[in-house]
Amino acid sequence: VARILITSGPTRQYLDAVRYLTNASSGRMGRALAEAAVALGHEVIVVSGPVVVTYPVSVTVHRVVSTEEMLEVCLREFPSCQGLIAAAAPCDYRPMHVHPDKIHKTGQALHVELVETADVVAALAKVREAQWMVGFALDTEDLRLRSLAKLEKKSCDLMVSNGPQAMDSRDNDVEIIDREGNVVGAFAGSKESVARGILDVIQRRLVQPRCAAR
Amino acid sequence: VARILITSGPTRQYLDAVRYLTNASSGRMGRALAEAAVALGHEVIVVSGPVVVTYPVSVTVHRVVSTEEMLEVCLREFPSCQGLIAAAAPCDYRPMHVHPDKIHKTGQALHVELVETADVVAALAKVREAQWMVGFALDTEDLRLRSLAKLEKKSCDLMVSNGPQAMDSRDNDVEIIDREGNVVGAFAGSKESVARGILDVIQRRLVQPRCAAR
Repeated sequence: VARILITSGPTRQYLDAVRYLTNASSGRMGRALAEAAVALGHEVIVVSGPVVVTYPVSVTVHRVVSTEEMLEVCLREFPSCQGLIAAAAPCDYRPMHVHPDKIHKTGQALHVELVETADVVAALAKVREAQWMVGFALDTEDLRLRSLAKLEKKSCDLMVSNGPQAMDSRDNDVEIIDREGNVVGAFAGSKESVARGILDVIQRRLVQPRCAAR
Repeated sequence: VARILITSGPTRQYLDAVRYLTNASSGRMGRALAEAAVALGHEVIVVSGPVVVTYPVSVTVHRVVSTEEMLEVCLREFPSCQGLIAAAAPCDYRPMHVHPDKIHKTGQALHVELVETADVVAALAKVREAQWMVGFALDTEDLRLRSLAKLEKKSCDLMVSNGPQAMDSRDNDVEIIDREGNVVGAFAGSKESVARGILDVIQRRLVQPRCAAR
């Protein structure tokens, strides 16, 4: 039995008091992964952006809004966990200037400078001790290539790659690659069944080898 | 009995295949208004951005994503309606350039030019014949003043003003002003009770006078 940190849902990066940048992540994949992990007997900590889905009652849920908040909570929880499944889609750009009030329309264009937010998984990789890490990559082209590049950049053990049709959908279609770029799992179907497939790979390749080594 | 067009929820303006600008409108106020209008025997057409709330089954719902789509559907439905209640919070800026794929992070800032989207209510005002129009204004400061300015700019009969705390909340706190700037109603409480108050004002001031004039 492991203690597993799961990130889930989108984050929001506000431009002013009302408008923000985000994506259509629903938290359904994160919820399905939490359910699959709980079913295997694991203790699960979820750090979730704003979503409507409800997580299993046996799971500890931390709610956050921005990527900075998600990172902050993850940095606090990660040291007590044995592994990370990063299913969230944190907003990776933020407006450099945030207006405290609502920006009023003037008829003119608004020039906004977007800067990259901190990379949650890469930041956790820097403080990892013995933890295993599973990342998610969502791309629109060259999925396997970009997935491997992200695995290396974020120092993950496994990377789950999916396309944009995964967002806000009940189904998913994923490939899991390892550090050598081998496809070690491929699952398609409901997010619940895909989550069980992913947890099965994690269990065999990451959880059990460490249990056996104890 | 009138045929009433109600707009509801947020809209999204995509920057690329994944990221978009939006706001936290939940569609709860629009749903509550639809319920209150149905309870008074009216026929209701809802044009809704992406939301999770479910509208009453007796209501015709048109789902849209962007402000342009919301305007397009409204322009088609408005001529057959006697009135409009514009409870939606359409995203009023859109990235001038939309990237068809996901923009890849480079470590550099992204300069984005946001241009104003079409104003749905102002555009409907231009094609109105005998229809009455009720707008919603959401501001962070000078609520009554800005509400009156919006009423004039959008040629509405009544303007409902609320603050940003209305967004994604179960409660609301509104003031209704008429063309002379008089406060003709003020309601606070659950969105359901606030919606009944707003419909009561609409019924007495906009629906019934026209029925009597027939």
